[in-house]
Amino acid sequence: MKVLWIFAHPEQRSLNGSLMRDGLRTLEALGHEHRVSDLYAMGWKATVDAGDFGDPPRERLFVGAEQERAHASGTLSADIVGEQGKIAWADTLVFHFPLWWFGPPAILKGWFDRVLVQGFGFGVAGLDGRALRYGDGGLAGKRALIVTSVGARESGFGPRGIHGHLEEVLFPLLHGTFWYTGMAALPPFVVYGADRLTAADRARDAAALRERLRTLPTERPLPFRHENAGAYDEDLVLRPEFAPGRSGVGVHR
Amino acid sequence: MKVLWIFAHPEQRSLNGSLMRDGLRTLEALGHEHRVSDLYAMGWKATVDAGDFGDPPRERLFVGAEQERAHASGTLSADIVGEQGKIAWADTLVFHFPLWWFGPPAILKGWFDRVLVQGFGFGVAGLDGRALRYGDGGLAGKRALIVTSVGARESGFGPRGIHGHLEEVLFPLLHGTFWYTGMAALPPFVVYGADRLTAADRARDAAALRERLRTLPTERPLPFRHENAGAYDEDLVLRPEFAPGRSGVGVHR
Repeated sequence: MKVLWIFAHPEQRSLNGSLMRDGLRTLEALGHEHRVSDLYAMGWKATVDAGDFGDPPRERLFVGAEQERAHASGTLSADIVGEQGKIAWADTLVFHFPLWWFGPPAILKGWFDRVLVQGFGFGVAGLDGRALRYGDGGLAGKRALIVTSVGARESGFGPRGIHGHLEEVLFPLLHGTFWYTGMAALPPFVVYGADRLTAADRARDAAALRERLRTLPTERPLPFRHENAGAYDEDLVLRPEFAPGRSGVGVHR
Repeated sequence: MKVLWIFAHPEQRSLNGSLMRDGLRTLEALGHEHRVSDLYAMGWKATVDAGDFGDPPRERLFVGAEQERAHASGTLSADIVGEQGKIAWADTLVFHFPLWWFGPPAILKGWFDRVLVQGFGFGVAGLDGRALRYGDGGLAGKRALIVTSVGARESGFGPRGIHGHLEEVLFPLLHGTFWYTGMAALPPFVVYGADRLTAADRARDAAALRERLRTLPTERPLPFRHENAGAYDEDLVLRPEFAPGRSGVGVHR
């Protein structure tokens, strides 16, 4: 494998920092290559703004159109182009972050906002002219794994837990970002109760992550539905014969 | 009402900029007070880091604990304290942003990450010592409205639409952030097909937002369940007699 490990934590000496170092050693021992985007260490700029585009600002900034134009003309800023190069190199992406407000820290959200522009991450048309999305597209063939930590106990993130079932809470990433751009979304790796771990807990979690990394090339992704395989109608609504009588984000598996 | 309007778009001359100006004029005409946090115009810092805390960095940064400590000791950075002051003043918060990768732009995600610290937004204990969350807590009594725009058509965000039912896609904000801190979450106001609007469409959307602002004080919030009202067991799992046989984020309404 060629693994790009995107790390979004301000403290290297954290539980997550230890997990990453252990994970990278594991990848090396398994004979895989890796590169790292340590967003805090890089001083990654989180916010999309006119500075992302090489030309002087125009009368009015249309963000999506400007991203697409700058990508096509090679004038996206160097930090964005650098990340796109790493993604193109990788066959597997690991997104490693503490879960803050039930999503990625802003510095990582800004990585998605700035790097996955139209024409690179999405907006690529297939042979029939239809947009390639949800299971196909700019990043098809790659795999994506979330490694995250939460303070809460696991029960609260279960199918009926108060915080929401974690795979549904992470739907904007797993389905709306990974799957949208064509990447196979693997089941997230989660450290629960991260503020109260004993040494034995930490050893158990590190071992569990090592095992997940070992099986990463062959693990079965979340079975999201392909957009262009007949399950959705022309209005992009799931046809009645699929998940009949149900609704909500869970119907897309 | 006392409305704090948090705006997260890099371009004032955008559709969203027009909607905000129209919305603020509407609030004035209705006799309401308002304050604005225009995050791009303020140069809002998106990323949590050691610079948020007044004291020199320690041996190791524990983000949550350091946020709580700095809040309690009055050493959070001035920009964070300023936003907390605006929130304390307001009875209603409007979060206005284009939906990027199925969530808020990084600059707004960073506003949540940095401002809603333990001891302010959450982590306040009730008389019985239990944490006040989900319907109660630091921001209880306030109302929160999302105003957002998406490029896609409405059908794709319906209950069985391919992008996921919008109210479930926004669960991390509506339930995990607003409701978690005690704020009543109002149904989001959404402009669909934002890249292809005619002048008539824009007039229709502006009128619809004006009507939403007119009814803001009395509109019925999303009926999320209170944590401390008996529906959840000691493991924070929804008791079997509520939403029997169902699972997923939809069971929490």
